[in-house]
Amino acid sequence: MRMIKWQNGTVLTPDQTKLPLQEVTLKITTVDQMCEAIKVLRIRGAPLLGAAAAFGIAIAAYHSKTQSKEKLLSELEDAATKIKLQRPTAVNLFWAADRVLAKARAFIGTTEELKAAVVEEAQKIADEDAAQNRAIGENGAALIKDGDTVLTHCNAGELATVEYGTALGVVRAVCEQGKKIKVIADETRPLLQGARLTTYELMRDHIPVTLITDNMAAYVMSKGLVNLVVVGADRVVQDAVFNKIGTYGVAILAKEHNIPFYVAAPKSTFDLSRKAAEIVIEERKPEEVTHIAGVQIAPTGVKVYNPAFDATPLKYVSGIICESQIYYPKDFAKFGPNFQL
Amino acid sequence: MRMIKWQNGTVLTPDQTKLPLQEVTLKITTVDQMCEAIKVLRIRGAPLLGAAAAFGIAIAAYHSKTQSKEKLLSELEDAATKIKLQRPTAVNLFWAADRVLAKARAFIGTTEELKAAVVEEAQKIADEDAAQNRAIGENGAALIKDGDTVLTHCNAGELATVEYGTALGVVRAVCEQGKKIKVIADETRPLLQGARLTTYELMRDHIPVTLITDNMAAYVMSKGLVNLVVVGADRVVQDAVFNKIGTYGVAILAKEHNIPFYVAAPKSTFDLSRKAAEIVIEERKPEEVTHIAGVQIAPTGVKVYNPAFDATPLKYVSGIICESQIYYPKDFAKFGPNFQL
Repeated sequence: MRMIKWQNGTVLTPDQTKLPLQEVTLKITTVDQMCEAIKVLRIRGAPLLGAAAAFGIAIAAYHSKTQSKEKLLSELEDAATKIKLQRPTAVNLFWAADRVLAKARAFIGTTEELKAAVVEEAQKIADEDAAQNRAIGENGAALIKDGDTVLTHCNAGELATVEYGTALGVVRAVCEQGKKIKVIADETRPLLQGARLTTYELMRDHIPVTLITDNMAAYVMSKGLVNLVVVGADRVVQDAVFNKIGTYGVAILAKEHNIPFYVAAPKSTFDLSRKAAEIVIEERKPEEVTHIAGVQIAPTGVKVYNPAFDATPLKYVSGIICESQIYYPKDFAKFGPNFQL
Repeated sequence: MRMIKWQNGTVLTPDQTKLPLQEVTLKITTVDQMCEAIKVLRIRGAPLLGAAAAFGIAIAAYHSKTQSKEKLLSELEDAATKIKLQRPTAVNLFWAADRVLAKARAFIGTTEELKAAVVEEAQKIADEDAAQNRAIGENGAALIKDGDTVLTHCNAGELATVEYGTALGVVRAVCEQGKKIKVIADETRPLLQGARLTTYELMRDHIPVTLITDNMAAYVMSKGLVNLVVVGADRVVQDAVFNKIGTYGVAILAKEHNIPFYVAAPKSTFDLSRKAAEIVIEERKPEEVTHIAGVQIAPTGVKVYNPAFDATPLKYVSGIICESQIYYPKDFAKFGPNFQL
């Protein structure tokens, strides 16, 4: 099912802050609306953010009144800059915006043709993501046996991508092969993407899922209830994988229990020119921790620390499942600016 | 501050499900009220549960109309049986109930004198707990240096005891020695004892505290923000410490980051005749996970796993801080039915 659609200048996508209790479709027609949707996580998930960034620039192009190509390029660049400001950690946002801008800058043709080309490039990014996720799913499916239970953190599912999902794409591909597997979903505080989104899309697809709180992961591992961990990624750098806060802890727990820990991510998530220490980790507002669904749960004025992501050093990662292949620790050793993905 | 008080047949204690937003004092006058309060965690924390169990039996004695000693003993036994059924994991509940019953069974005197003796024994258990926690605090304080940051899980504070706290008793003792320290509190899903109670009582006592979600513990450790972990315990057995779900994960993370992991618990929490495999871990209702403060956060009908405790093998424990001394791994090796605490 397509999570983000372009319809004559309008972007249609589920409001993920409302799921699972309400199914509301956002109809985004301005760059500001797209920025707000990204900022407050109505749209989230690294691959989906890439498509959203591209479509955000497509909105600027489609609705632009200018006939000047130079003016249009400047409007597109403004849109890209605004969109990139919304989330600092997910690299797909930057990757997709830059890809659309590069296409626009290199374009030869009329202003109207340029507008159409920008929309087309955004659509292409979305289509490619859908295809890549199916390839990731197929590559990863070989790792999982009939009867296995997979633990996942946050939501690297269809709702985090244009279609099919990355970590949950692997789960879907396994199920499509006829293997019977189960999923354990960490709820993923503070924003509960596991409790709200992973459970929702797996239940919709009739894939058995059990919800736990984040702090139960060690316990279920110690009971032998987990065969494999698969998570998504917001950015893969030379020495670490950035993903939703809590991923690093799950990776340590998996290692301690000798459970393989895999990351499923398209190549657009890779940023091998950088190391973990260079990446800014987004810190979000305290209310995400002190309030749940609008209800206050902690004392007024309590000090809060709310990093949205963490970095899992590659020594904890058994493999990174890409659309072309699975990268293993022997490959990690070669990760760097000149590594050919 | 006394967390549980006896006043002419009425037990006064804060309703901990209402904290931190409302300060409501429960007035318990029947065994059934005490059972309900224990069951739904209005009263919680292993040492406080011990005092509550004792006072529950005291209520049965105080309000009994019988003049027959035999009838009274049978009423007390019924009360103890009911109370013990409420929470299977916290050993203090059993320990305190059995201590009061043993006192009653051995008592020589009139029925009215027996009623008074039961109340007196319950009061003695409460007074001893308060004194033990101060001793635990003093023993543990030596482990913590000026400038340190202590991470704790759940609430092993004053609110978990009759007075002063176990893990937070250590924190209090350090502060009373004039050392400046900080606390990081895991929120402790599903029931948020860290977010609701640990923050509340530390803020009340002007001890600096920062709240994080459970899945941020690994991240703050990796950033060098934690010098020491101190938690409480619901039961210490030959080979493990039972405590609130999530403790085991924190212990693994601490080990991976070379951070000492201490347990603070009075001897009444020890049950060295048993091994971890023999202990029943309470599983609580799914709604604790699917709902927060009454608000539904997960899809209707989602499967949930909700164990309330986990077992941390002693190999992850740097020491257990008791009222008489700190037990170290060299002592753990001797733990067994004949170990003299």
